[in-house]
Amino acid sequence: MTSEILKEIRKVIASKIPENVEITKVEFEGPELVVYTKNPEIVAEDGGLIRTLAKELKKRIIVRSDASALLDPEKTIEKIKEIVPEEAKITNIYFDDVTGEVIVEARKPGLVIGKHGSTSKSIIKHTGWVPKILRTPPIPSKIVEKIRKLLRRESKKRRQILRNLGCRIHRQPKYENDWARITALGGFREVGRSCLYLQTPNSKILLDCGVNVAANDEKNAYPYLNIPEFILDEIEAVVISHAHLDHSGFVPYLYHYGYRGPVYCSAPTRDLMALLQLDHIDIAEREGRELPFNAKDVNKCLKHTITLEYGEVTDITPDIRLTLHNAGHILGSAILHLHIGDGQHNLVYTGDFKYEKTRLLEPAVTDFPRLETLVMESTYGGKEDIQPSREMAEKRLIKVIYDTIKRGGKVLIPVFAVGRAQELMVVLDEYIKSGILEEIPIFVDGMVWEATAIHTTRPEYLSKTLSDQIFHYGYNPFTSEIFNKVSSSDERKDVVEGEPCVILSTSGMLAGGNSVEYFKWLCEDEKNTLVFVGYQAEGSLGRRLQKNRRDITFEENGKMKVYKVKMQIETIEGFSGHSDRKQLMKYVHNLSPKPEKILVCHGNAYKSLDLASSIYKKYRIETRAPLNLEAVRIY
Amino acid sequence: MTSEILKEIRKVIASKIPENVEITKVEFEGPELVVYTKNPEIVAEDGGLIRTLAKELKKRIIVRSDASALLDPEKTIEKIKEIVPEEAKITNIYFDDVTGEVIVEARKPGLVIGKHGSTSKSIIKHTGWVPKILRTPPIPSKIVEKIRKLLRRESKKRRQILRNLGCRIHRQPKYENDWARITALGGFREVGRSCLYLQTPNSKILLDCGVNVAANDEKNAYPYLNIPEFILDEIEAVVISHAHLDHSGFVPYLYHYGYRGPVYCSAPTRDLMALLQLDHIDIAEREGRELPFNAKDVNKCLKHTITLEYGEVTDITPDIRLTLHNAGHILGSAILHLHIGDGQHNLVYTGDFKYEKTRLLEPAVTDFPRLETLVMESTYGGKEDIQPSREMAEKRLIKVIYDTIKRGGKVLIPVFAVGRAQELMVVLDEYIKSGILEEIPIFVDGMVWEATAIHTTRPEYLSKTLSDQIFHYGYNPFTSEIFNKVSSSDERKDVVEGEPCVILSTSGMLAGGNSVEYFKWLCEDEKNTLVFVGYQAEGSLGRRLQKNRRDITFEENGKMKVYKVKMQIETIEGFSGHSDRKQLMKYVHNLSPKPEKILVCHGNAYKSLDLASSIYKKYRIETRAPLNLEAVRIY
Ligand SMILES: [Zn+2]
Ligand SMILES: [Zn+2]
Ligand SMILES: [Zn+2]
Ligand SMILES: [Zn+2]
Ligand SMILES: [Zn+2]
Repeated sequence: MTSEILKEIRKVIASKIPENVEITKVEFEGPELVVYTKNPEIVAEDGGLIRTLAKELKKRIIVRSDASALLDPEKTIEKIKEIVPEEAKITNIYFDDVTGEVIVEARKPGLVIGKHGSTSKSIIKHTGWVPKILRTPPIPSKIVEKIRKLLRRESKKRRQILRNLGCRIHRQPKYENDWARITALGGFREVGRSCLYLQTPNSKILLDCGVNVAANDEKNAYPYLNIPEFILDEIEAVVISHAHLDHSGFVPYLYHYGYRGPVYCSAPTRDLMALLQLDHIDIAEREGRELPFNAKDVNKCLKHTITLEYGEVTDITPDIRLTLHNAGHILGSAILHLHIGDGQHNLVYTGDFKYEKTRLLEPAVTDFPRLETLVMESTYGGKEDIQPSREMAEKRLIKVIYDTIKRGGKVLIPVFAVGRAQELMVVLDEYIKSGILEEIPIFVDGMVWEATAIHTTRPEYLSKTLSDQIFHYGYNPFTSEIFNKVSSSDERKDVVEGEPCVILSTSGMLAGGNSVEYFKWLCEDEKNTLVFVGYQAEGSLGRRLQKNRRDITFEENGKMKVYKVKMQIETIEGFSGHSDRKQLMKYVHNLSPKPEKILVCHGNAYKSLDLASSIYKKYRIETRAPLNLEAVRIY
Repeated sequence: MTSEILKEIRKVIASKIPENVEITKVEFEGPELVVYTKNPEIVAEDGGLIRTLAKELKKRIIVRSDASALLDPEKTIEKIKEIVPEEAKITNIYFDDVTGEVIVEARKPGLVIGKHGSTSKSIIKHTGWVPKILRTPPIPSKIVEKIRKLLRRESKKRRQILRNLGCRIHRQPKYENDWARITALGGFREVGRSCLYLQTPNSKILLDCGVNVAANDEKNAYPYLNIPEFILDEIEAVVISHAHLDHSGFVPYLYHYGYRGPVYCSAPTRDLMALLQLDHIDIAEREGRELPFNAKDVNKCLKHTITLEYGEVTDITPDIRLTLHNAGHILGSAILHLHIGDGQHNLVYTGDFKYEKTRLLEPAVTDFPRLETLVMESTYGGKEDIQPSREMAEKRLIKVIYDTIKRGGKVLIPVFAVGRAQELMVVLDEYIKSGILEEIPIFVDGMVWEATAIHTTRPEYLSKTLSDQIFHYGYNPFTSEIFNKVSSSDERKDVVEGEPCVILSTSGMLAGGNSVEYFKWLCEDEKNTLVFVGYQAEGSLGRRLQKNRRDITFEENGKMKVYKVKMQIETIEGFSGHSDRKQLMKYVHNLSPKPEKILVCHGNAYKSLDLASSIYKKYRIETRAPLNLEAVRIY
């Protein structure tokens, strides 16, 4: 079947391509069509050629060089160094024999590409090698390094995987597309373990596959994958909206039990997801809890991940076409648009989204080419879930820090590694830069630092303001010298015994992690302040402190030790990465086109039901808040 | 596991049974517990003994004789004829060596049982054989005969099937019963192919499995059994509400594709179902249509069918207990009560039901021990679906017949084989007996006659009035001599050329069957009358005639022949076996206890939605009208 399709495609290419371009091979690589040529330089020059072909074939096309067109690697390196200006600061060059690509890592990748790709084209012209250009993170990131190494090592295997996948994606659909349904496998009428199962007569895919890290047993921690319609062998694709564990944490499980299909997500999601998944496995190990997957599965997942850019339309099964759109929630977070069948239906799943411009990110996208069913989150879906403006929140934060510093105290802010932490860093840098806040040291602990490093790898995903700053003015707030990395016990001790400062550390709810260590050191001094900027789950230490518990007992070396908490405790709302009630309602109002049906998820039962009924009352759109294990026909 | 349970059970029995009773074997046979004894006569005498055991063990118990206790068969026959009074009119006696039962067929089975079972006990005492007493139908029924023969022939195999089933039913449940859901596989927002799929963590069962005989392609004719959660091998039980093909017609398919589990239904449903299934297969064959099953599958189905009486509580899986209740729709039609888990949930599925006393049947049952979720039909669920009273309907019918007869015409009433036909027969007999209508011949054609014969086998399922007439006054309206069986073309010709009369013949919508033949003969004479008493589907000949089409073309021997219809055409509403809108609402009102949730099915989209919203508005019970392929959590 696929060879039939490829034959057709070869014909089209032959009819469109100039005579002096020799095509040696055409094959599918995952969702993309790869064309090998002996004349990469001609193809590179004629920018319109590939665009015309892509439009004609309705496929994404990659051009690679035939082996015969490739210059000797050593000479290629020389040539590249000749062509690329020194300011690009190339840090690494290596070759992928399998794909005929030369990977160039540089501090300023834009200069390797050149204006309208001129430098890049020049490399092709002079060496035959097609450059794949990567940013060298200004802050070194272990995980990014690890991932790049892994992909380099597995290049050959990965190409085989992609070729098989290509055949699968581009097969003829077998059945008429006369229905589609979503089964709620997790994260409905609750927050945690988000997992949607989309089925059509021709394909089965998963949207998100998370864990509930706050759950106290396996049954509530993981999505309902043990129901009969979930057939792991028949899942064709897993799409991950964003890296948070409640959306991505259970993906390694799929690979542990034999899934070998692709995971689609944005590039930052891939990296952040790996970071958080490995950390999750690490913590479980340290706490002696057994998880039904391990670090090897994270590697398998990476090997099978296909990253997509926002707005890139991609066939992921014979009858489903996926496009990611900015969700404004965390770096790389995506709203998933799925076009099903031949115009039969358009489904949008918001994942977690923020419908407000933040320091870090642009607001969530509201415009889609078509839209019939919307699945939206409702974390703050209750009538009363109105949050203060960002501006107010920032002012309160600065005031609290100012007061604490002034009296010689230290500010501890427990945060999740990804999201709010970076938002706060930008805020602090901004206020210090503008002189409103004096220049104090900000200590960024372990995981937060690592996640921040990933942010510096992908500045194109940040808000317009930030990426302009980075690209046009060369100023990256994350590399500001006010931020200090803390990674060892000794360093932590130095911090707490040192001058007034701000400390950002995981976990965000004081449920394990280094934030608890800092807390123990700082809590008995009334000059210090503990600032909560995020949600504190019932039962967590954070929640107990918010409820004015002041005698806190910890087990230390087998003995119970009581801490008398005297530090100030502040809760600052308004930094959430989730839309508040007003933003949720406004999002629905501004959607274009209007959906015919809205399913509400990712919120406790009351909030889901309240939002669903409010949307129905206000906009007269059919709404539902399904329960886990329910299946809903979308058409 | 099962042997563990049996060990326990043997202990209990040993502790409860008198010393002089020797138990030789205890085993499961399907849902029942079978106890073999060398002293059946003692057990038979002590009626309380078995009741006590059943209560103690929470199992249905059958007592059989050990081989050593059995009298020689020939002597047994002599003895039985000695014990049973001649008026019982025994027609057949035969033995089941496998079970140690003697099957006694008699015209008056009550006299073989005797007062409080005295005659039956006497047989056990004198022969050792436990009598199984069957009614010899006053009207011979080919299908009943066939079924009895089949079961007799397959007795040994059937016992093996039941023993295996017993082990399966009585296993320990593996998982906690913390949810249950219903998936709509057919018959939701439509009429036809009714099929509900009930899943718990421990079991999977089907409620009804019908076909839509009016559908024009396979896709719409059969339930959605090709979805991934439907795993035929894991289905543990199929429960059939009643015999109509839209509820039972697809059961043979299950056996064709390897299902070997039980079908639970009432005894009349088993017989009527086999009749209709075989007729369905026959018609398809005659019309050259291929069905995905055949007559052999009907036999397999019969071999695996377990009949239950109304009110009999039966374990059908480790966590589901089934009870049938009268539905008032057709003979043997049942409302299914399912108790799930250990008190977790009670589900009632009405199937088709009539909430009004009819000539034939008692009204549907409204009282249940417990009830949380109700699934109800909505055939006449629209606001405007108010039907005239039975009395009005009967009067109109009699008037139409009277007028036709008076002018020397014939009345043709196309009917379904099962249901309305027998209702009309009782009405006609009543009016003729009372002298209001003169004594005219009523011709009952083929399938209708056969279905009527089955009614005479099971008078205990008829309305109190009818069964009283039959049991206490010995008067069976169906055996009245006004009814004449018609079964050949010659006989049909005699009928249409004969005196004024009434003809009952299938099919009910003039869509094939002998009613069409009668129609051709009678339609061009204005003295005759065509009476519709049932629903005429869009596109059927019946519907076209109702819409005043009067030139009807048939293909005859390859040529087209036009009939000019001059006969009178009447539609009489009020004989429906379905509750009308008022009765549906009243049914919900009278339910005890009140359900927490109601799912509406078996009605077109408008009627289902209208009934669902009306129930919600009036009774504030949560309602839903799911779509096929949707899954709904019931808890
Ligand atoms: Zn999130
Ligand atoms: Zn989330
Ligand atoms: Zn639509
Ligand atoms: Zn029916
Ligand atoms: Zn029906």
